[in-house]
Amino acid sequence: MNIPTRLGFVNITSEVQECLRESGIQEGLCLVNAMHITASVFINDDERGLHHDYEIFLEKIAPHEPVSQYRHNDTGEDNADAHIKRQLMGREVVVAITKGKFDFGPWEQIFYGEFDGRRKKRILIKIIGD
Amino acid sequence: MNIPTRLGFVNITSEVQECLRESGIQEGLCLVNAMHITASVFINDDERGLHHDYEIFLEKIAPHEPVSQYRHNDTGEDNADAHIKRQLMGREVVVAITKGKFDFGPWEQIFYGEFDGRRKKRILIKIIGD
Amino acid sequence: MNIPTRLGFVNITSEVQECLRESGIQEGLCLVNAMHITASVFINDDERGLHHDYEIFLEKIAPHEPVSQYRHNDTGEDNADAHIKRQLMGREVVVAITKGKFDFGPWEQIFYGEFDGRRKKRILIKIIGD
Repeated sequence: MNIPTRLGFVNITSEVQECLRESGIQEGLCLVNAMHITASVFINDDERGLHHDYEIFLEKIAPHEPVSQYRHNDTGEDNADAHIKRQLMGREVVVAITKGKFDFGPWEQIFYGEFDGRRKKRILIKIIGD
Repeated sequence: MNIPTRLGFVNITSEVQECLRESGIQEGLCLVNAMHITASVFINDDERGLHHDYEIFLEKIAPHEPVSQYRHNDTGEDNADAHIKRQLMGREVVVAITKGKFDFGPWEQIFYGEFDGRRKKRILIKIIGD
Repeated sequence: MNIPTRLGFVNITSEVQECLRESGIQEGLCLVNAMHITASVFINDDERGLHHDYEIFLEKIAPHEPVSQYRHNDTGEDNADAHIKRQLMGREVVVAITKGKFDFGPWEQIFYGEFDGRRKKRILIKIIGD
């Protein structure tokens, strides 16, 4: 992933489904997690207004500015808020696989949530089962 | 699940344990997740006062009213706050299974958390192992 | 775990890696969870300033004092805030195992987060796979 802004959400459902298809696994579990500690993988709605609301909410309770309010930023970083935001939104999701498909509810979509973007990051997808 | 109020918590531990018994699995993992994106599955204490505290806390940091403060609600919904509350409380739990039983700590109980109730919703339980 | 203060974070990565080594499992998933409901297991950065920022953030949105603000504390406990903090930081992590090693990103470290310390608590590590 390489999000051009500091914050952003990307629907990765089809990429994860493609991995499941390639694996051929029929019954099992799929773990999807951010490999970076200022990013999240989570399941929610693919609705632009909601993503805006998430951004406003997260910025309100863990504001980026002033960066000097965080001791982590004394190390030369400016992303302490991103570590907090990621913790609130979660690192990972685990999804059930039945008959070769994800057991999704009607609106469940998998998202990558970026809180310190403008650099390359990776997502891990691990599928286990038969 | 069909919670008669907007917010509510229900202890689902015995239903999940019944699924484990029926599966006959002795060693493995059990995933329990809400299939709806305004609901949570989480593990905590079965204590009414605590559930009240969770409600007050969630309502304070992500209030339902005024519904017009959320862009998601421009779509005709009034549940943007429920999407935020669910994200804070989590979508899922994964519980270890050893010798046919859940490896629970002394107070661990599984709850369904509803943040936009008064309609029918489903929970997914997936058990893998031997 | 026995944390001498009310709040604290301990890096448990090497203990979890030792369990993986002993298991001999090459491909699978590892679940690590707090067995107590006022504690977390989470993955983030091993940086002291960040842990300070987490403490300040959690104390700001779910303050310990006054303990009388929480109905849970009417039971004689004083740890309602700890139940909230644990919920925000998460109960568990699931980590992928490939070729006998954890699929960690560059900075991922596993932490035990204590929000009601000064007593003995346990962590569960369950590894499944081949």
